[in-house]
Amino acid sequence: MSANVPTDICFSWAGMMARGGQTGPHKDGWGIAFYEGKGLREFRDPNPSCSSEIARFIVDFPIKSQIVISHIRQANVGDICLENTHPFIREYAGHYWCFAHNGQLEGYQQLTGERFKPVGTTDSEHVFCWLMEQISQRCENPLNTDCVGKLLRECCQQLRRHGVFNMLLSNSKILVAYCGTKLSWITRQAPFGKAQLADDQFVIDFAEHTGANDRVTVIATSPLTVDEAWHQIEPGTMLVFEDGALVAEWK
Amino acid sequence: MSANVPTDICFSWAGMMARGGQTGPHKDGWGIAFYEGKGLREFRDPNPSCSSEIARFIVDFPIKSQIVISHIRQANVGDICLENTHPFIREYAGHYWCFAHNGQLEGYQQLTGERFKPVGTTDSEHVFCWLMEQISQRCENPLNTDCVGKLLRECCQQLRRHGVFNMLLSNSKILVAYCGTKLSWITRQAPFGKAQLADDQFVIDFAEHTGANDRVTVIATSPLTVDEAWHQIEPGTMLVFEDGALVAEWK
Repeated sequence: MSANVPTDICFSWAGMMARGGQTGPHKDGWGIAFYEGKGLREFRDPNPSCSSEIARFIVDFPIKSQIVISHIRQANVGDICLENTHPFIREYAGHYWCFAHNGQLEGYQQLTGERFKPVGTTDSEHVFCWLMEQISQRCENPLNTDCVGKLLRECCQQLRRHGVFNMLLSNSKILVAYCGTKLSWITRQAPFGKAQLADDQFVIDFAEHTGANDRVTVIATSPLTVDEAWHQIEPGTMLVFEDGALVAEWK
Repeated sequence: MSANVPTDICFSWAGMMARGGQTGPHKDGWGIAFYEGKGLREFRDPNPSCSSEIARFIVDFPIKSQIVISHIRQANVGDICLENTHPFIREYAGHYWCFAHNGQLEGYQQLTGERFKPVGTTDSEHVFCWLMEQISQRCENPLNTDCVGKLLRECCQQLRRHGVFNMLLSNSKILVAYCGTKLSWITRQAPFGKAQLADDQFVIDFAEHTGANDRVTVIATSPLTVDEAWHQIEPGTMLVFEDGALVAEWK
């Protein structure tokens, strides 16, 4: 999620949480990170989100944020354990960088670096460290959208040749979405309507929860609601969102 | 906390939580990090722990861990906001390093580095980054207790000259405690007895919650219980705990 005002993710998280082992097969852990300014608050668990008390707590307890990254895991590379749950986080240049990956890679082991090392054993954290290494070595201003966006697109195109690679990445300023195979997004703004979750009976009337100038974008592997028009991203495309708006696009 | 078996911190956290704005003045945020193997799970909030729904959730929801670092904040340097809440975390050498500081420093601004940068504006995170920089530059094997312990002791003695500096630091293997002015610890092992919190009516009979071989050490600024014999650490001393046992000491 990227938004221009601090917004809670309770509605979307209710759908995500159900997908984690109930309406979907992603039962091998989950995590969610909320930026508040430069700060980051995270919750994670290697157990299925659909039956997690912490995940349920987050549905009921509104945390307002302008950037949220969440992930439910279906393990392929790497055991089911806490250090292998997404999102992964590193500090670089005085900002927390947060990354989540959907997919599965092969032949990525040679993509290494000196500065950022994986703690766990997933392909995802491994290539996140490589991405951070590339940014630290090749990006003069890592907070410049054009600079970091171009570099990330080039790196993501390379990673796409290693398998399925869809990702979300943020540095607390922008939210970068790269679609290797499958990713959808929607921007909600006035006039707000109603929506029903695809994975739950939950219906919301956004008009009751929003201000006239709110702009909230949600990006997900598959649309989270059944009655809204989500954009399907073309494979190979990178989108950059800031304050809920699409600010850059590389096709 | 350092323990030889995964142990929950619910009892101690009930006391800490009350100190955060109720029985103590540390109302400016709180955080708690639980290691599970190499993984790390954290909860944090810039609001007082005594009235925090997330803090209450942790008292009621046992998370079992061998190393836990928690902190309640009384702000001096740095605003009250999420990025200024302890504990602070960085990845180095494929491990998460976690740090909490009690105290207040002056003239620390020149202690900087290239690799680790503070995200917030506290003296604590600033010197944590400097400590990590020292480890990355001067410690051949950052997971060797003797190597990292000696270096940290030398750096902590230097920091102590800048003001009040008590700290806890872990790399997922060991828990390092440095006492600049005030720090106490206790090891609980068989035969286990009862204890009452200093900050709450909560009484526990550890015998009901432990196995015969369990060994659990708790370190705190002030003793958390009223009816147990806590050791007061001599200022200038660094202790290193592993699996709940004191494994190294520099006086």
